[in-house]
Amino acid sequence: MIPTMTETGKGQEITPSPDDVKLAVLGGTGPQGRGLARRLAMSGLSVQLGSRDQARAESAADAIGQGVRGGENAVAAAWCDVAVIAVPWAGHAALLDSLADELASKVVIDCVNPLGFDDRGPFVIDVPEGSATEQAAALLPRSRVVGAFHHVSAVLLLDPAVVDIDTDVLVVADDRPAGQLVQELAERINGVRGIYAGRLRNAHQIEALTANLIAINRRYKTHSGVRITNVEP
Amino acid sequence: MIPTMTETGKGQEITPSPDDVKLAVLGGTGPQGRGLARRLAMSGLSVQLGSRDQARAESAADAIGQGVRGGENAVAAAWCDVAVIAVPWAGHAALLDSLADELASKVVIDCVNPLGFDDRGPFVIDVPEGSATEQAAALLPRSRVVGAFHHVSAVLLLDPAVVDIDTDVLVVADDRPAGQLVQELAERINGVRGIYAGRLRNAHQIEALTANLIAINRRYKTHSGVRITNVEP
Repeated sequence: MIPTMTETGKGQEITPSPDDVKLAVLGGTGPQGRGLARRLAMSGLSVQLGSRDQARAESAADAIGQGVRGGENAVAAAWCDVAVIAVPWAGHAALLDSLADELASKVVIDCVNPLGFDDRGPFVIDVPEGSATEQAAALLPRSRVVGAFHHVSAVLLLDPAVVDIDTDVLVVADDRPAGQLVQELAERINGVRGIYAGRLRNAHQIEALTANLIAINRRYKTHSGVRITNVEP
Repeated sequence: MIPTMTETGKGQEITPSPDDVKLAVLGGTGPQGRGLARRLAMSGLSVQLGSRDQARAESAADAIGQGVRGGENAVAAAWCDVAVIAVPWAGHAALLDSLADELASKVVIDCVNPLGFDDRGPFVIDVPEGSATEQAAALLPRSRVVGAFHHVSAVLLLDPAVVDIDTDVLVVADDRPAGQLVQELAERINGVRGIYAGRLRNAHQIEALTANLIAINRRYKTHSGVRITNVEP
């Protein structure tokens, strides 16, 4: 697909083709980040795993293989066209605040779930901006922020025996071409379908639904996913 | 199935068998209430549709057929073992507040979605108690409140040409036998699977997800539903 010049609220910006995106996974050494880096590298994308600590990033990247490289978050952010934010919630605001320049004009995919755990299981952490995705949009006013990949099981992403991931990726976006790109990137993972699921102001419940999926995983002893029925994209 | 005496936080209570529940759909003359009344009556349950206005309840019940009867909300609530709350959000608190005595010790299923609409589409209304379901639990301290049926398309429920409804019903409950009963009631609707999806404190995002499904319906011109993958109940 040819890159297209598109109108966004931020002016004329080029949306890259999903076939040759340079993808950074920032704060990416946890299971979710490594799992997404692995699957998206397997699909043929050039992927860089970012961490605060370069040695840790390189070691995690080497363990993944698939041509994934490791680097400091700021270096990976400056290099990429599209960044996935995969840092734990506790480090979310600080990471984004530090990378606003490197991520300017780029598509930024937030997959962070603000959740806590206590003896009754998972619960949702209140976010002043409404959601992690909206916090990202507030901290990165020059970036094109999209929410996606909240519900994909890291265990399944990392399991070499799992060929197809049986889930839809629900994409929330105000920037329509950026959302479309993220749907297409999601579909580079075998088995996954990317579904537009509303605007950024409806990101909260997509993130929070992960608490329900964790409760489901515990009750049914599984790694669940979500499919939307009656949709033929 | 034989009714079982079960321990709940409220003491020894009898959970009725799903095969002979007397079911009231309160505030039930809207599309969602009529659709659920229709499908659950088709499954062989005795169903009463409740409204503030008896004539309106009777007229809606007659239009449904399937043996559904109509009555005032308080009469239907006093008669039933299990009540579905299907009133619009604007009338939710007032209806429940008025029926706390009639609904004492009964299983109450809340399917109300606190949503608003503006020129950008659906959005989530903030509920001081956290969710409609938790508001119901606060207003009905002697009832066994469960959240369910938030995502089932009223259009499909009411369409005689639709045999199977292609969706899971996500059930949130703190009272485990009550939640189990609601899962079994949900499965009386052809095509539906009932899935335990966490505690009442995780009801908000189940309700709010309806905003995303409405956005999906608009984008893809459909009546969407939700399936949880990798679960074998």
